[in-house]
Amino acid sequence: MKAWQFTGTNKPLELNEVPEPHAGPGQVVVEVKAAGVCHSDVTALDDPGWMPLFFQLPRTMGHENAGVIVEVGEGMEHWKVGDRVGLAPVMSDGDALGYGKWDGGFGPKLLATDDNLVKLPDEVPFDLAAMATDAGLTAYHAIMAVGGAKAGMKVGVIGLGGLGYIGARVAVLAGAEVYGADINPQTRDLAEEIGLAGVAESITEFKDKNLDLIVDYAGFGSTTAGAVETLAEYGTLVQVGMGRLEANISTYPLIINQLTIKGSKSGTKEDLEALYELMKSGKLNPPMNIIEQKDIPDAIDKLRAGGVVGRFIAKY
Amino acid sequence: MKAWQFTGTNKPLELNEVPEPHAGPGQVVVEVKAAGVCHSDVTALDDPGWMPLFFQLPRTMGHENAGVIVEVGEGMEHWKVGDRVGLAPVMSDGDALGYGKWDGGFGPKLLATDDNLVKLPDEVPFDLAAMATDAGLTAYHAIMAVGGAKAGMKVGVIGLGGLGYIGARVAVLAGAEVYGADINPQTRDLAEEIGLAGVAESITEFKDKNLDLIVDYAGFGSTTAGAVETLAEYGTLVQVGMGRLEANISTYPLIINQLTIKGSKSGTKEDLEALYELMKSGKLNPPMNIIEQKDIPDAIDKLRAGGVVGRFIAKY
Repeated sequence: MKAWQFTGTNKPLELNEVPEPHAGPGQVVVEVKAAGVCHSDVTALDDPGWMPLFFQLPRTMGHENAGVIVEVGEGMEHWKVGDRVGLAPVMSDGDALGYGKWDGGFGPKLLATDDNLVKLPDEVPFDLAAMATDAGLTAYHAIMAVGGAKAGMKVGVIGLGGLGYIGARVAVLAGAEVYGADINPQTRDLAEEIGLAGVAESITEFKDKNLDLIVDYAGFGSTTAGAVETLAEYGTLVQVGMGRLEANISTYPLIINQLTIKGSKSGTKEDLEALYELMKSGKLNPPMNIIEQKDIPDAIDKLRAGGVVGRFIAKY
Repeated sequence: MKAWQFTGTNKPLELNEVPEPHAGPGQVVVEVKAAGVCHSDVTALDDPGWMPLFFQLPRTMGHENAGVIVEVGEGMEHWKVGDRVGLAPVMSDGDALGYGKWDGGFGPKLLATDDNLVKLPDEVPFDLAAMATDAGLTAYHAIMAVGGAKAGMKVGVIGLGGLGYIGARVAVLAGAEVYGADINPQTRDLAEEIGLAGVAESITEFKDKNLDLIVDYAGFGSTTAGAVETLAEYGTLVQVGMGRLEANISTYPLIINQLTIKGSKSGTKEDLEALYELMKSGKLNPPMNIIEQKDIPDAIDKLRAGGVVGRFIAKY
């Protein structure tokens, strides 16, 4: 089978002939049906700081995967051939599909374990399922698991592209009253589709709404600071975005309003299960660009250039 | 009886003859045995922004009080004459002793309700009990109730004068391994008395200690930033001090280490009960300057000038 492989920093992905994987003890083979292309892939290709993550080269990349089980190893009889699954990217030892010692979904088949496997409901298509494993998971974890968004809560979301679209939509579907902010007027046009109660250029325009929770998916420093000034007493800011790596915050509202700021990254298998449950409704449809396996390097180039709207998902 | 009263912004306290209070329904009269002088009193005297807090003028100031019940009003029979009590300063409606509509302890007697009254163990002297009601309460609330300091935890405390001394000592008595930081070398000399496992000019010198919790009682912006860079994964920073009103923090460790930052102010009656319980051991003895009622205005002038070590406590 043919797989796009990482061979070293600043080298293009190579389409290599690789052996078919077979399931060892505690493993299954998943036939990949959809694999997302992520900005982390660009960083891994370009930044020598990521090299130590790769246990052995070449390595088949692709950490956002969904597919069907085609072979079941010893001790994995709770899964069966034909099961539809989504794959949480991170292993319990901190390693991840498509990086350290595990091949990813830029090839047609991969090995997975119970660290990864999440049952995929029939109602959720593979492309959405793949998108959910990383972008969806990170967005969901921040607003639901860390932020505790729920029905009746007033929630602000900063940044409505990518993760922010998903986070805001998930909170709307959970019954929260959601206000969005984005500096990009085209992204603000998504407000109705997401189901926002209000949209503005800056979250500070919603100071009068008494927001209990703000999730900053943009992270441009000024957004963090604006959130701190906007939250209601005892409110919580969840920081996800790292657009800039510092923020000049006012400590007065932090202390007087007894606010909480929490950093959030990635998410858990349980988050992914909960997200698939929510997606069964068919009401979470963030923008996606469907491509073929052969187009993966081109998608990476486009992500590197910037300005892409919607996740690239390769369908097999 | 004679009481030091606030009569308006930028006016000195006036020693006025005032009527003795009598307990109405839901009230008791407390004979004040010790009353702390707080930097908030200076601010209230100097800053016109505090004027709206005063329901009626003149008003007897003093919000850090301990004493003995000398009269019990209707419905307050669960208290009796002779009970030793400390008084939590803040009422359930947000008002406070010595400010809005309640006279404080800069006079010999005051009215209190169940919002304020905390039983004072025989082992705790009145001067310490008064100190505990505000400085002690705020320090305790931040490190114990908000920060969750406990035995086995590794804790950093920034600022070892005033609140920081108390916070660090409380955490030590609770069994935590406590590291302190202060820019003042004289304050660092208190390390042994407090029982610190280490002391330094900056908390960042304890990066290798994997601190679970840091409480910043100084709040000079750089201290907040240093704490964020120093905490272990999943660590918590509690921000109390407002030495400067902004902080330029790095969001990278916030997100990657999934940190929590919480603002903390004041504390609850339950905190004060817990603090008195801890003080029964006799092992919490922060620096105090014992004065008489007549010296209160002079103590306020000294606080205004700055550089005071130890709480001013007027004993009656």
